[in-house]
Amino acid sequence: MSGTDHSVNIAPERLPQIVLVRPQMGENIGAAARAMWNFGLEHMVLVNPRDGWPNPQANALASGAARVLDQVFVKENLGEAVASSQLVLATTARKRDLTKAIYSPKEAMTRARVAIESGQTVSILFGPERAGMENEDLAHAGGLVSIPVNPAFGSLNLAQAVLLLAYEWRLSADDALGEEMEWASGVPASQGEKTHLYQSLAERLDALGFFWPEKKAAAMRLSLQNMFSRLPLSDIDVRTFHGIFKALNKGTPFQNKKSETDE
Amino acid sequence: MSGTDHSVNIAPERLPQIVLVRPQMGENIGAAARAMWNFGLEHMVLVNPRDGWPNPQANALASGAARVLDQVFVKENLGEAVASSQLVLATTARKRDLTKAIYSPKEAMTRARVAIESGQTVSILFGPERAGMENEDLAHAGGLVSIPVNPAFGSLNLAQAVLLLAYEWRLSADDALGEEMEWASGVPASQGEKTHLYQSLAERLDALGFFWPEKKAAAMRLSLQNMFSRLPLSDIDVRTFHGIFKALNKGTPFQNKKSETDE
Repeated sequence: MSGTDHSVNIAPERLPQIVLVRPQMGENIGAAARAMWNFGLEHMVLVNPRDGWPNPQANALASGAARVLDQVFVKENLGEAVASSQLVLATTARKRDLTKAIYSPKEAMTRARVAIESGQTVSILFGPERAGMENEDLAHAGGLVSIPVNPAFGSLNLAQAVLLLAYEWRLSADDALGEEMEWASGVPASQGEKTHLYQSLAERLDALGFFWPEKKAAAMRLSLQNMFSRLPLSDIDVRTFHGIFKALNKGTPFQNKKSETDE
Repeated sequence: MSGTDHSVNIAPERLPQIVLVRPQMGENIGAAARAMWNFGLEHMVLVNPRDGWPNPQANALASGAARVLDQVFVKENLGEAVASSQLVLATTARKRDLTKAIYSPKEAMTRARVAIESGQTVSILFGPERAGMENEDLAHAGGLVSIPVNPAFGSLNLAQAVLLLAYEWRLSADDALGEEMEWASGVPASQGEKTHLYQSLAERLDALGFFWPEKKAAAMRLSLQNMFSRLPLSDIDVRTFHGIFKALNKGTPFQNKKSETDE
């Protein structure tokens, strides 16, 4: 089916970024780029692609959607890729043992649009072919997106999953949406701010021997990181928590109260 | 003389049939079969496939969705394929000079479901790769389905178009989830648990002179309590925070680690 009208130019629009986490096949990266551009998405981020970048197979498959690959960002790790995003949603097929909101593609992209229209940055994550994302990856996400596939046959390929989310992005333009989070003061914290809050807390707790017993330490850390990623914190909340953790950790009355509460 | 009419393809599950009109590549037929079965559709009709039938390439690509190809019907012409259908909708990308209703994929599949639930048979048509359907083909359709692709890049492949319609079929059932919170373990914290968490923290902070200057203390407390009330904490999150606050506040390595982390 070809419906390309080359006379039409798309007005610049703020869009969610599609983050492919450790993608394996260049062909799938190219096919994902096409799927994105089919519905007007163009910001792709590759986290540690298996075969490096650029990848000729990706370009061969992306014909017509080269503009997506031309402006791709490549990042070493997922934390860096989503640091500036206030809304991070991870597309996942398997059930996970995580306390996170699970959205349908439609609900996810409606939320993405609301967030973007209020000035936020949004990342939608897709895991590597076959294996999917690790729980360490999902710890960077505030919520999950579950595609309601046939329980007897759930094998969507990467580009198909991207296509469905991109399609729902396009549809979400039509939904007049009334619901909106009111941020009395402050703005939604970015994922980077949340990660930093977690890291700084983990450091303090580490020094206190909190992550114990040793064999459970990794799981405890991950669950702590997950908790902060999931909570809808504002930038002010993040500063408040920094202040609380610092105050409690000090364990003595402030010497210079003003500078402490400003942390 | 047999009374079986093989042109009547009424499924026990009562599903729409996907009709591929003069499909060219076996690979695309296989990929379309997978896309159908991803969302629970299984009745495929091939009208005059270019390379005949069966087609080994189709089977190679359909892995996991072989049941769709196993029960495929092959017809000489489109008229025969849709003869028993009461609702026939043709998926098309190009604008047509036809006086026909044009539906979005969602509207189309909602209509398909309503028709099927009232006992009708439904066919969704897809044209050959690249060329699409002729107006003579569309003459068999009661309405058109238009996928809202990017006007600047409308080249969906056959399997992708089938995937989107199959996806909308699945959604039209609409027990499909919008949002669902997965509480891996634990349940949403009660307001009482949140209030207690705030109070216990405020007590610790009070002892440290955190709420300062005095004239701002009341507002600071209120905003802290508001924050905990607003956050979607699980009962486990609440226990985690209790543990963190206690550990930080102590400021020294645990004497009895087990009892501390159990708090």
